[in-house]
Amino acid sequence: MTNKILNQLWSPIAALTSHWEGKVNAQICVGISNASIVPEKPRVLVQIYKENYSHTLISQSGAFALNFLSLETTELIKLFGFSSGRHTNKLGNVSYTKKTTGSPILDNCIAYLDCKIINAMDAGDMTCYLADVLESDTLQNGPLLRIREAREAIPDEWNIEWDHHNQDSINTSREIIGKISYTPWQTP
Amino acid sequence: MTNKILNQLWSPIAALTSHWEGKVNAQICVGISNASIVPEKPRVLVQIYKENYSHTLISQSGAFALNFLSLETTELIKLFGFSSGRHTNKLGNVSYTKKTTGSPILDNCIAYLDCKIINAMDAGDMTCYLADVLESDTLQNGPLLRIREAREAIPDEWNIEWDHHNQDSINTSREIIGKISYTPWQTP
Repeated sequence: MTNKILNQLWSPIAALTSHWEGKVNAQICVGISNASIVPEKPRVLVQIYKENYSHTLISQSGAFALNFLSLETTELIKLFGFSSGRHTNKLGNVSYTKKTTGSPILDNCIAYLDCKIINAMDAGDMTCYLADVLESDTLQNGPLLRIREAREAIPDEWNIEWDHHNQDSINTSREIIGKISYTPWQTP
Repeated sequence: MTNKILNQLWSPIAALTSHWEGKVNAQICVGISNASIVPEKPRVLVQIYKENYSHTLISQSGAFALNFLSLETTELIKLFGFSSGRHTNKLGNVSYTKKTTGSPILDNCIAYLDCKIINAMDAGDMTCYLADVLESDTLQNGPLLRIREAREAIPDEWNIEWDHHNQDSINTSREIIGKISYTPWQTP
């Protein structure tokens, strides 16, 4: 029951891209929030799992880009989301440019946010990053893709592969979280 | 352009309730993310502006509840969202109970998450709280209400009042953010 509610609290789907010392990577991310009400100070909150190769690159570079996907680019969910980029370049056959932070901006995303980290919070199995949006643009019309629409649009085999990948991630997170004991909340 | 994208990264609308030493409060919140992929460890990330009375109560109690609204309860946006509870009890005429954390659970919400804080990050004009979901339930069927649907459903006067309140909040945040200088990101 809890998870039925929580599942409605994921963001639209983005390919989160990163770079460090000549390496680039892309992963799928649905833990994104708007984090500013001040128009001239756009900010986002983004959750990155510690086991992800992107976490290594991002924690070094202090930067990432969010490339929002459409129904026409669901193949990027498979390409970026179901395996690690630690030993292969997932962007090898993908067209992209680099803007302000140097993080890859995908030619066929709907919209992108090029982001520079300003703060971080340990969240057990992941890190929550607060970042300034330094540059952004909308490249195509249309709504941002959400998990439910993507799930309905992709082939059955991809859904099965996605489920397997998610189960691996859940197992990893469960193991990490199980080792952490939190001190009770104290008023700052 | 940036803000057109970022506006799609707010969450469904919740009445965020809190309590401390006999005082209770409710505010409107759209900065909410699912923050766990482990089903038995449900977590949320929630953004609370420092100037809000809720921030005072939450930082003392280390707890809050998220009560998700429906199209039938848009009057709660006006009741909780357009003024501060510092000097009045906004819940005086609202039916609620208390569950695990003691934060008010509204009788006519669609679903609620009763949450206990485990970590926090300073985000300038607001604090990002990471919290365990200790208890939750779905009380009504139907989709969670989002800003766009609410804006279309409420009377014009409420939209104008909402805009004025938002502008006040933006001005306050702008002032707070303007006073902060961030040190460049350093790899932990």
